[in-house]
Amino acid sequence: VFPLARESGRTLRWRLHQGLKTAILTKQFAPGSRLPSTRVLAGSLNVSRSTVVEVFEQLAAEGLIEARTGAGSYVSPQLTVPPLPRVSAPEAQFPAPFTPDKSDPELFPHDVWAKLLARHVRRPGRYANCLDPVGMPELRQALASHIALSRGIVTDPDRIIVLSGTQPALFLSARVALRADDHLWCEDPCHPLARTILAQAGRRAIPVPVDGDGLDLGSAERLAPHARAAYVTPSHQFPTGAVMGLQRRLDLLDWAVRTGAWILENDEDSEFCASGTALPSLQGLDQHGTVIYLGTLNRITYSGMRVGYLVAPAAIAEAMRGAAATISAAPSLPVQAAMADFINEGHLTLHTARTRAVYKQRRDHLIGELDRHLSDHVVVGETASEVSVVITVRDHPAGDIAAHGIAWGLDLRPLAHYAVAHEQPNALVIGFIHMPPEQITAEVRRLGHLFEAVRRSAPARMR
Amino acid sequence: VFPLARESGRTLRWRLHQGLKTAILTKQFAPGSRLPSTRVLAGSLNVSRSTVVEVFEQLAAEGLIEARTGAGSYVSPQLTVPPLPRVSAPEAQFPAPFTPDKSDPELFPHDVWAKLLARHVRRPGRYANCLDPVGMPELRQALASHIALSRGIVTDPDRIIVLSGTQPALFLSARVALRADDHLWCEDPCHPLARTILAQAGRRAIPVPVDGDGLDLGSAERLAPHARAAYVTPSHQFPTGAVMGLQRRLDLLDWAVRTGAWILENDEDSEFCASGTALPSLQGLDQHGTVIYLGTLNRITYSGMRVGYLVAPAAIAEAMRGAAATISAAPSLPVQAAMADFINEGHLTLHTARTRAVYKQRRDHLIGELDRHLSDHVVVGETASEVSVVITVRDHPAGDIAAHGIAWGLDLRPLAHYAVAHEQPNALVIGFIHMPPEQITAEVRRLGHLFEAVRRSAPARMR
Repeated sequence: VFPLARESGRTLRWRLHQGLKTAILTKQFAPGSRLPSTRVLAGSLNVSRSTVVEVFEQLAAEGLIEARTGAGSYVSPQLTVPPLPRVSAPEAQFPAPFTPDKSDPELFPHDVWAKLLARHVRRPGRYANCLDPVGMPELRQALASHIALSRGIVTDPDRIIVLSGTQPALFLSARVALRADDHLWCEDPCHPLARTILAQAGRRAIPVPVDGDGLDLGSAERLAPHARAAYVTPSHQFPTGAVMGLQRRLDLLDWAVRTGAWILENDEDSEFCASGTALPSLQGLDQHGTVIYLGTLNRITYSGMRVGYLVAPAAIAEAMRGAAATISAAPSLPVQAAMADFINEGHLTLHTARTRAVYKQRRDHLIGELDRHLSDHVVVGETASEVSVVITVRDHPAGDIAAHGIAWGLDLRPLAHYAVAHEQPNALVIGFIHMPPEQITAEVRRLGHLFEAVRRSAPARMR
Repeated sequence: VFPLARESGRTLRWRLHQGLKTAILTKQFAPGSRLPSTRVLAGSLNVSRSTVVEVFEQLAAEGLIEARTGAGSYVSPQLTVPPLPRVSAPEAQFPAPFTPDKSDPELFPHDVWAKLLARHVRRPGRYANCLDPVGMPELRQALASHIALSRGIVTDPDRIIVLSGTQPALFLSARVALRADDHLWCEDPCHPLARTILAQAGRRAIPVPVDGDGLDLGSAERLAPHARAAYVTPSHQFPTGAVMGLQRRLDLLDWAVRTGAWILENDEDSEFCASGTALPSLQGLDQHGTVIYLGTLNRITYSGMRVGYLVAPAAIAEAMRGAAATISAAPSLPVQAAMADFINEGHLTLHTARTRAVYKQRRDHLIGELDRHLSDHVVVGETASEVSVVITVRDHPAGDIAAHGIAWGLDLRPLAHYAVAHEQPNALVIGFIHMPPEQITAEVRRLGHLFEAVRRSAPARMR
């Protein structure tokens, strides 16, 4: 009477439910019509009667059928079927070659994570209804210990706020620490989303040039002498990869203390500094509570993890906790509990060490391949970062190379695309950590062909 | 040489790592001192050498020890141990008797959920790095179909934004749909967090009285004739439990169309309306795109789930998507993927039907017990809601009863506590859905004793 979908990995109950639902929604079973009895259906489909009863119960709860006592079940007579909505075409599933700022989710120990999550997901009852809106105490404790050791962060867990990443952390920080239309320094170039977030928060980001040491403090003081905060990425400037040296760090802290300004320190990618041990965080150097520290686990795990955090200075910790609790941005409780274990049991540290080694290898391999195939065309920039490579283009505008790259499926981003106010070198930002060595080899070779093709079509347009 | 902690359920590797770490941090192994070789340690502890090597690797990555080639491993000489931070005392783990607005996480099918989550958590690679910042297309699709059927919502998945709950949804809606200092109507009494969120968003909530039909439209137009929006909970007014009737709904929509205002419809608890099928949502009745619909799965699953959503009207959908993407509030990807399955495979519908039946039983039981033990003292209010009971207190100020209740461990909230501008009946809001029938019986009996005790100490202070 009724065909069951042959979908592997689905329960019989699921297939029966889907089949009946589809038959009703497509009017194969007309509104008001009587359904076969559960006994008949069970017999003809060779499934247990209790399964059919359960499916009928569910269809009734959905309003699709009605049970009439002693008279069987009927398709709801007044059923008006809403047009079934369709989702727009799904996004591309893999980052293109050379896309900056994408890490490799394959390196993450998904099996370990699955085990830890399973440990908590079946018994969240103990705390499921007593949600701490700024994050589970166990996770804040684990984070506090971890960043004390790995980044020299001085804090107690009550000043840590767990959120889904550095984006909401920056939004909250700017909203709580600054007032409407307050000026703050923002690196130029920088991640475009940072400027968008600050604008959404209603704060005015003043673009400040970047040198090999990060934010140029002298220019900053000239450009916006009354800034109330500096938003910086000292451990790994994006996209230049510059690492802020110790002296610059001390000078920046001195400015903040002198003027009563805040420092919003985004410490993303601090795990990946070539020196082996990253320089101490600004937060760790700070003696006066001027630094709001923004951290994330989405880079070192995978971007869909959605676990980040901030460390608030004591003076505004309560205000930040209040603002965070209001919008309730903490992740799902089992995810938080599993992450606490992932940290406490040493998995994060181990995974970080292994990932660093892999990324370093990929970087060395990339640079070797660039030297071999592109030394006529580009100069590879030097940074202390292990996840960042910027190449200066000799003969052609970087924008031309990027434009041609689109047809080749290469995602090349001119450095200038990340800047809004200050001129940039004629360079491309090269993402590579998401690419295994074989892919790097193949794609660098194609990049070489791309440069040759551009040279043939428009010889030496610069120099 | 070295005792391993006897903690059941922990791996040997974990215990060894913790033991060594503690020994180093407590200076049992002094800075600079040489550690036993991995071979010696493995032999004396009777564990495999590879386990010890792995633990050493991890300790080295943590900066606690250093390996010197050919010369063994040493405790880091420059180790300055940060003071180990302590988390503040954990919150109470269970809601007190009669706390309003707490659901029962024990009813949730945690085993089903664990299975669905396990299905996705080991293979998020496909999409782990291509996060859709407004929610996975699969989940938005599932939500669109579900709320079309259950709430009559008209939408396509591209107008759905997935967030962690109704709190960030309200914050975002108020920020995007309204301008700074715009007035909007807000029910009085209401959940105090709603007012806090609107204040955080920089919008001015004007308290409007509530009658048995929800927001009093006539008073609203007198109190704030130029309001740019109305924030309402039509399917279940909190804390009164009032359900907005169809005529009031149509009048409210008419006002919005007439004045070009927005309606922010919080549809929390729509699952629990005594009529069996809740009235159609405002969003479903709306013909002019004036309604922003806020929904959540945290009530029907458990509050630590952190999955909610909003449906934006077409005119501001793009702006809302942009604002949501900026602060990136979508939940962890495996949680989103599992929730899509939970909906598509019918578990949500089934769980909702079962939960409704349980809560209805608890409500009937509560009302029976109140009649039996407290009819001298209180009158039980009537609402169409199955998760809400308000009792009017005859002889004493409700605030006195609540104050005395604290010593008894009873969390009684006077209705007036939820209001800021309008006088309220002398009543208490009674939460009960988190309490099994036996507990309801016991606690209502205690509530009776409490009333007797108050009567003895201060006879007939009102009337």
